[in-house]
Amino acid sequence: MPDHPHQRPFLCDKNQSVVIAGVGLIGGSIGMALKALPDAPRIIGMGRNPERLQKALELKAIDSFTTDWSEAMASAGLVVLCGPVASIASEAQKAWAHRINNNLVITDAGSTKGSILATISNNPELAAAFVGGHPIAGSEKSGVEAARADLFCDRLCIITPTQFNPPGKIAQVRLFWESVGSRVIEMPPDNHDQALALTSHLPHALSAALSRLVDPSLHQLSAGAFRDMTRIAGADADLWRDIFLSNKNSVRNSLEEYINELLNFKKLLDNDASEELSNWWELGRRHRKSFESPAGN
Amino acid sequence: MPDHPHQRPFLCDKNQSVVIAGVGLIGGSIGMALKALPDAPRIIGMGRNPERLQKALELKAIDSFTTDWSEAMASAGLVVLCGPVASIASEAQKAWAHRINNNLVITDAGSTKGSILATISNNPELAAAFVGGHPIAGSEKSGVEAARADLFCDRLCIITPTQFNPPGKIAQVRLFWESVGSRVIEMPPDNHDQALALTSHLPHALSAALSRLVDPSLHQLSAGAFRDMTRIAGADADLWRDIFLSNKNSVRNSLEEYINELLNFKKLLDNDASEELSNWWELGRRHRKSFESPAGN
Repeated sequence: MPDHPHQRPFLCDKNQSVVIAGVGLIGGSIGMALKALPDAPRIIGMGRNPERLQKALELKAIDSFTTDWSEAMASAGLVVLCGPVASIASEAQKAWAHRINNNLVITDAGSTKGSILATISNNPELAAAFVGGHPIAGSEKSGVEAARADLFCDRLCIITPTQFNPPGKIAQVRLFWESVGSRVIEMPPDNHDQALALTSHLPHALSAALSRLVDPSLHQLSAGAFRDMTRIAGADADLWRDIFLSNKNSVRNSLEEYINELLNFKKLLDNDASEELSNWWELGRRHRKSFESPAGN
Repeated sequence: MPDHPHQRPFLCDKNQSVVIAGVGLIGGSIGMALKALPDAPRIIGMGRNPERLQKALELKAIDSFTTDWSEAMASAGLVVLCGPVASIASEAQKAWAHRINNNLVITDAGSTKGSILATISNNPELAAAFVGGHPIAGSEKSGVEAARADLFCDRLCIITPTQFNPPGKIAQVRLFWESVGSRVIEMPPDNHDQALALTSHLPHALSAALSRLVDPSLHQLSAGAFRDMTRIAGADADLWRDIFLSNKNSVRNSLEEYINELLNFKKLLDNDASEELSNWWELGRRHRKSFESPAGN
């Protein structure tokens, strides 16, 4: 479990509970990490499928569960929305509608922020209470069966405060993400979405496109390159459809830049531009070496 | 070491030696695998850099070394060309020029075959003696320091016989690759080059393009997806320039097909085609699942 000291409580009232809506890989790992804390709050799993919530209970990711928002929110001080990104705005609205008071803080684990914030900004009180979060951790696996208490340990979590968030709520959300082990940084939501389009969403589209293109009859002729390049294509289809659609503009921009890289490569190839091809490759190689050994750069 | 029985010798004369030209990751691993055989032939390392050959000798990948083709070939029954793909045709010509007789068999470990065969087909005797090989094994690492005796164990090696090869030479080359642990299949050289463009060369270009595109300042916002998708971008620039140029047409065709996949994805995104996006992703996901569990399909 996290070495990060849980110095201060992230709940204003220690008798309040934490509601995790969507107890899969991410939500389950949050529950497990919270329950390992010395002064763990009560964790309530909220969702639509009682069987899956029961599984989360058996795996000790939550203390109890419900499929009813009013029941879930009866003692909630913090809500963490871990469902599909397309559902987060509406779940934030439901949670807010059932709040016990305006001290409620809401965060999420969604991969994109722009579309969520666009929806909830219609409600100034909710917009003040919602501080987006995005833990940069995960797996092509899904489901609470894959959850682990240390999933976030020393991994980055980006929180995306807006002008509507009072400093106290931002601080609570930061402490919450730190309490599950994350290193927390703040970014404006738009910057977050543009950066993640490049570092996560585009790579997923590229992996899927490669996996689509190569007929399985050729798989036996593949080695580690193909294996690594298609790993993330094994992820859930609806999850990724939602992420792509919720970050459409940034994904499209990244895709256009990427296609230009490929067209540039193709031109060098067509021209037998041997030295330029080496240089083209070398920049990518340097970036990768810098990724492997950031201290050296 | 390989479980594959080294049932029959791959050298016509057991007093003859095996020459490995280019003793890096692949050549070194071949030497180590051969030396682990009960009736190991003498292994001579041939190259241009005595220091690297000395390193290979210290790592017991070879029994002796030379930088002189006439010395290397004095007792050679089989030559394995493991240098960069751009050098293989000329090294085959040098080896052939110094043969003790026409029983010599030459194979290689080059990633592409068309450009090599186009050059050596000018010499019918050499074209008869050369049976291309391509072990589907490797690493983004290079150099004899990364060599291992089990690199080829249960991995595929594609041999690419032509109409010019007599059956005896094809059988010898098959036995040789089996003796280092490979599962050997035969493919026509053109089919090999087209298939490998898709399963290996294209993925390398895609990885390099992604690594180029993402500024290192964004690396901290990357998780496993980016790490896996850029791993092979860390490979050697000149090695990959040579592979791309030696398989230019097939690489270009693969690249065009791939760009079409991306443009199709982009169109679905532009149209908010939610269901089609899920279907688009799902085909790649199914292919990946079939790659992970080929027995299930």
